[in-house]
Amino acid sequence: MQSLKNTLWVGLLILSGSAAAQKGSEIRPVNFAQVAVKDQFWTPHIKKIAAVTLPVCIEYTENKTGRIRNFERVAGSLDDGKGHEGIYFDDSDVYKALEAIAYALKLEPNPTLEEKADEWIAKIAAAQEPDGYINTYYSLTGLDERWKDMERHEDYCAGHLVEAGVAYYDATGKRDLLDVGIRMVGHMMTIFGPDKRNWVTGHQELELALVKLYQTTGEERYLAFSDWLINERGKGHGKGGIWENEHWGAAYCQDDKPIEELENISGHAVRAMYYYTGVVDVASYKDKPGYMRAMDRVWEDVVHRNTYLTGAIGSSRHNEGFTEAYDLPNASAYGETCASVGMVFWNQRMFQATGTSKYIDVLERSLYNGALAGISLAGDRFFYPNPLASDGDERKEWFGTACCPSNIARLLASLGNYVYAQTDAAIWVNLFVGSQANIQLGNHEVILRQETDYPKDGESKIVIEPKKQHDFALHIRIPGWVKGEAIPGDLYRFGQGPASKPLIKVNGKEVTYQEEQGYAVLKRKWKKGDEVSITMPLEAQAVYPHPSIQQNQDRVAIQRGPLVYCVEGVDNQEEVFNLLLPAVGNFKSVWEPNLLGGITSVEVNGKVAGAAGDGQQVELQDKTVKAIPYFAWANRGKSPMQVWIPTKIHSVTLNKSAE
Amino acid sequence: MQSLKNTLWVGLLILSGSAAAQKGSEIRPVNFAQVAVKDQFWTPHIKKIAAVTLPVCIEYTENKTGRIRNFERVAGSLDDGKGHEGIYFDDSDVYKALEAIAYALKLEPNPTLEEKADEWIAKIAAAQEPDGYINTYYSLTGLDERWKDMERHEDYCAGHLVEAGVAYYDATGKRDLLDVGIRMVGHMMTIFGPDKRNWVTGHQELELALVKLYQTTGEERYLAFSDWLINERGKGHGKGGIWENEHWGAAYCQDDKPIEELENISGHAVRAMYYYTGVVDVASYKDKPGYMRAMDRVWEDVVHRNTYLTGAIGSSRHNEGFTEAYDLPNASAYGETCASVGMVFWNQRMFQATGTSKYIDVLERSLYNGALAGISLAGDRFFYPNPLASDGDERKEWFGTACCPSNIARLLASLGNYVYAQTDAAIWVNLFVGSQANIQLGNHEVILRQETDYPKDGESKIVIEPKKQHDFALHIRIPGWVKGEAIPGDLYRFGQGPASKPLIKVNGKEVTYQEEQGYAVLKRKWKKGDEVSITMPLEAQAVYPHPSIQQNQDRVAIQRGPLVYCVEGVDNQEEVFNLLLPAVGNFKSVWEPNLLGGITSVEVNGKVAGAAGDGQQVELQDKTVKAIPYFAWANRGKSPMQVWIPTKIHSVTLNKSAE
Repeated sequence: MQSLKNTLWVGLLILSGSAAAQKGSEIRPVNFAQVAVKDQFWTPHIKKIAAVTLPVCIEYTENKTGRIRNFERVAGSLDDGKGHEGIYFDDSDVYKALEAIAYALKLEPNPTLEEKADEWIAKIAAAQEPDGYINTYYSLTGLDERWKDMERHEDYCAGHLVEAGVAYYDATGKRDLLDVGIRMVGHMMTIFGPDKRNWVTGHQELELALVKLYQTTGEERYLAFSDWLINERGKGHGKGGIWENEHWGAAYCQDDKPIEELENISGHAVRAMYYYTGVVDVASYKDKPGYMRAMDRVWEDVVHRNTYLTGAIGSSRHNEGFTEAYDLPNASAYGETCASVGMVFWNQRMFQATGTSKYIDVLERSLYNGALAGISLAGDRFFYPNPLASDGDERKEWFGTACCPSNIARLLASLGNYVYAQTDAAIWVNLFVGSQANIQLGNHEVILRQETDYPKDGESKIVIEPKKQHDFALHIRIPGWVKGEAIPGDLYRFGQGPASKPLIKVNGKEVTYQEEQGYAVLKRKWKKGDEVSITMPLEAQAVYPHPSIQQNQDRVAIQRGPLVYCVEGVDNQEEVFNLLLPAVGNFKSVWEPNLLGGITSVEVNGKVAGAAGDGQQVELQDKTVKAIPYFAWANRGKSPMQVWIPTKIHSVTLNKSAE
Repeated sequence: MQSLKNTLWVGLLILSGSAAAQKGSEIRPVNFAQVAVKDQFWTPHIKKIAAVTLPVCIEYTENKTGRIRNFERVAGSLDDGKGHEGIYFDDSDVYKALEAIAYALKLEPNPTLEEKADEWIAKIAAAQEPDGYINTYYSLTGLDERWKDMERHEDYCAGHLVEAGVAYYDATGKRDLLDVGIRMVGHMMTIFGPDKRNWVTGHQELELALVKLYQTTGEERYLAFSDWLINERGKGHGKGGIWENEHWGAAYCQDDKPIEELENISGHAVRAMYYYTGVVDVASYKDKPGYMRAMDRVWEDVVHRNTYLTGAIGSSRHNEGFTEAYDLPNASAYGETCASVGMVFWNQRMFQATGTSKYIDVLERSLYNGALAGISLAGDRFFYPNPLASDGDERKEWFGTACCPSNIARLLASLGNYVYAQTDAAIWVNLFVGSQANIQLGNHEVILRQETDYPKDGESKIVIEPKKQHDFALHIRIPGWVKGEAIPGDLYRFGQGPASKPLIKVNGKEVTYQEEQGYAVLKRKWKKGDEVSITMPLEAQAVYPHPSIQQNQDRVAIQRGPLVYCVEGVDNQEEVFNLLLPAVGNFKSVWEPNLLGGITSVEVNGKVAGAAGDGQQVELQDKTVKAIPYFAWANRGKSPMQVWIPTKIHSVTLNKSAE
């Protein structure tokens, strides 16, 4: 196969940290390789990825499950007489783990992890069929059946293969895995495309991966193939199990309408997120106003009517996705970790396409709450669904469908991607994360050092060090929660009106600033050592739901900065579902360095209902209710938890039966 | 295939209404063909089986699903290019529907049903393989794979085929279906058995069917094969998916221990019930004291520690079966309809083996509550699980795994089987059901006419008409609920002590009677027109749970005669989970002829908790709570329901979140 690899390897150019074909005036992220994160909030989480999470993933991937053995069986290096182990999409977990390893290696060299990755990559390469096809399920159960059922995740696995290949090449310069991905895509492009066979990706993912492949290789045909795949949808081409299933059908994977006709979100949440991410990616290179109009409509439907306060999406366990507008049940919320990760991806692309801060507001919400809750503080256990009320639950070490562990790992390891963005003439500070960024503004090098304890408080200091004095615009995001806007639209609102604007000083002196598209814009000739300080009033606030959310009527939630809070039993004598809070909370924030790795808890004077009179009466007594950040729940054993607490009693349940 | 049929058809003898090889001194049921049921409670249910339930089953079996088409595809009479439709055990639903049709035909001629059955039977016979094997799943997906995974229900389907064949032959004298079953069993016996291959039935059922085949044909080898299958269990022979599944394993189908070592019930409830039924069947013909000692132990474990008040069993949805002793959650109760049907089968056999009434007490409980709740009053919709608390649920027209509809149909159509039992010298009146029975006591014919409004009240009149004056013992069951015994053992107990003994009169004069094994025994020379009247005090009673049932602490239920009651929202302004009842209820029974087909409702003065003070307080107010028989719930739309109501408040939940 060595010769094949060399003939296929043509025209590869990698442009570290930026998109090959983008114009200098277009917004792009500052690649996390250029962003050294050193942050009181995030660094402990990120460090656990390489130290704890990836070793867990590796153990499950190669020992406790047969994901690696499947590749060995195809290659013939393992001959144990057994067939394919696991589910037909299990290859993707190997690729996602490799992607996360790649990101970890970019953050910090780790010979053990790199050796393991190289070993896996060799096994993967050996399992590729001569025609470039790679999928252990079909190689082991019969290649005659491949490319028949469009939902068997062959393309989805290919997408994750490509993403991993790109990431590993970027991190290490080693191109073997990328080669495998290029061959697989090449194989697909000989079968599918204009004037060839139709194909609808049953679980979108390849679309966005192809754009990454285009960015890495500069080959336009990958971008064109991605666009072709997007255009295949909604035209009746879909074939296979889900399309025939009366409960799912084409809408389950967003194949019910062509892209430009999309009005609302529907179907499986993760598929939707990956799809939309790919759509915006393609639209950023090709002139696709119809795509972006559709994305605007759908985004509004998601954020204005279908997002949980935690930034999670997907209210139905049945289809792991959407039901109808404003249907946001708490206890049975699906809110898959991967869908929150997808919200981060999609909103980053929406921001890049528009330069508007509201997308980062949503990204921040999903990141700090819905996604981060998916992993334990120790980094070793994971949630798949993330409900907003629970009788008690615990994160698991692994899942049969193991998408979430490696997905949260790759997100956290590449967190630096989301802190800054740039054009050739401007920098955006999107997240308040302690870090040092090396940014190439056209021909100018600029170093940005951010120091902050956010979200403990709302102070941030940014030191700017251009190699030489240089004129550019610094956009500092003014978070929605500062402006009294809980989330873009009216799905959730704060009790208070807008707080005072952030106070911004340059070199110690307050400055007035223009607000453009949600950013404080500071345009000046920056010189070495210029210091920008940002002060935002960061206090606990009451949040109220839109009245159309039946499940939250007369309930209040607590948010402090970007963090959504919850009441957990362990802090409240296990009393969670019998609490009554005042509609307007008088909140007291307490920094607790020794609780849950260091968090600010919030206390409020409420009431608790309980039995009195020898169990023949109910009494409400005063109680100080303590809330903690939602992401940190379920780290102290099983305990009930609730985000939305009643402010008014509608119904009373006596001795709620243990299920 | 005609010749094969004739060569196999040897030695068939049918002995209507009694077991071929049993001794005259052994207790056997009076076959329902000899028992004309005419009962205010049961007749409406039974009539709906032929009029409504079976047409629904037929429509789903041959049109809305592919169960009949699968047979046609094997036979080649349908060539639509499609493979097997549905699940690998779907053939069994066809057989169970045929068994139910057979029973319906015994009750009343019905040319439409009989024609349909004959049509199906011809299609089934045409789908039998030349070697006698019949199973559309493997015939259509590849016979190479048959008899490999012991849990693929090949034997289970064979068992239902045999049961249907026996029933249809018994009802119509037509032996085609029985022939198919005999050939399938013959095929199995060439492969499996002593000195042949091992086999563990993955879903027990064939064991009891083989005993029926033995009873019908008189051929000892079927009985021996059944016993061999029973003895295969618990010896490490099991092979296939469930045995390899870490969550299930051998215990899931009771293959973890040999029969004689059984101590407790475990695993899948329906499998357990069918297994035990077969075990007692075999023990009734062969000298198997070890089997019966095991059955005694297991029965005690089931009834004393693991049965719901409704006679349903199986508290876990995960394994559709058992967890640990006294774990009886209400809302998440599985209580599969088929398992309650299985409780009826098994307890009937336990009674026959012992002549003891406690088994009929359990049978009656499962029949009038857990099983009957499985079907709508209209006869057209079904429950699969039967919880004891619900936020509201509705019966479905059909299920993917469609065992329950035909199972409840065959039980109700053959209800007459459970009313009386006999030896050659005695008659047992087990259920109080209006009916006329023609009983052959040795050489004597006796007609018994029972008139009763039970369970509306506790009066029953039995007129005895021996062809000529004859000396025999009449055993009249004294139900546990009359004796202050809610259920054998101490799992549930009534508030009151024992009520007065039933008053029994013969020809208008009170008699004193011996109580033997739970029966009032009247021994005399009976003459034509002798009239026995039984008067039992039948009033609503409070029932209390064993303190080890965590989920029911400080809760009370209501039972009236054999009927367990529940509180349904529709009768109580939707207030169900906020009720408080007095520990000792002062119940008022009201006969309501126009409610739910005619039921006795029960009222009790309780309290209801609700919001007060503009939603800032909780108040308990007096409320008359109305309860209805559990079997009748969910016949008036979705409404919350609860069987066990608190008598003391432990916990208060405010605004229980809509899931």
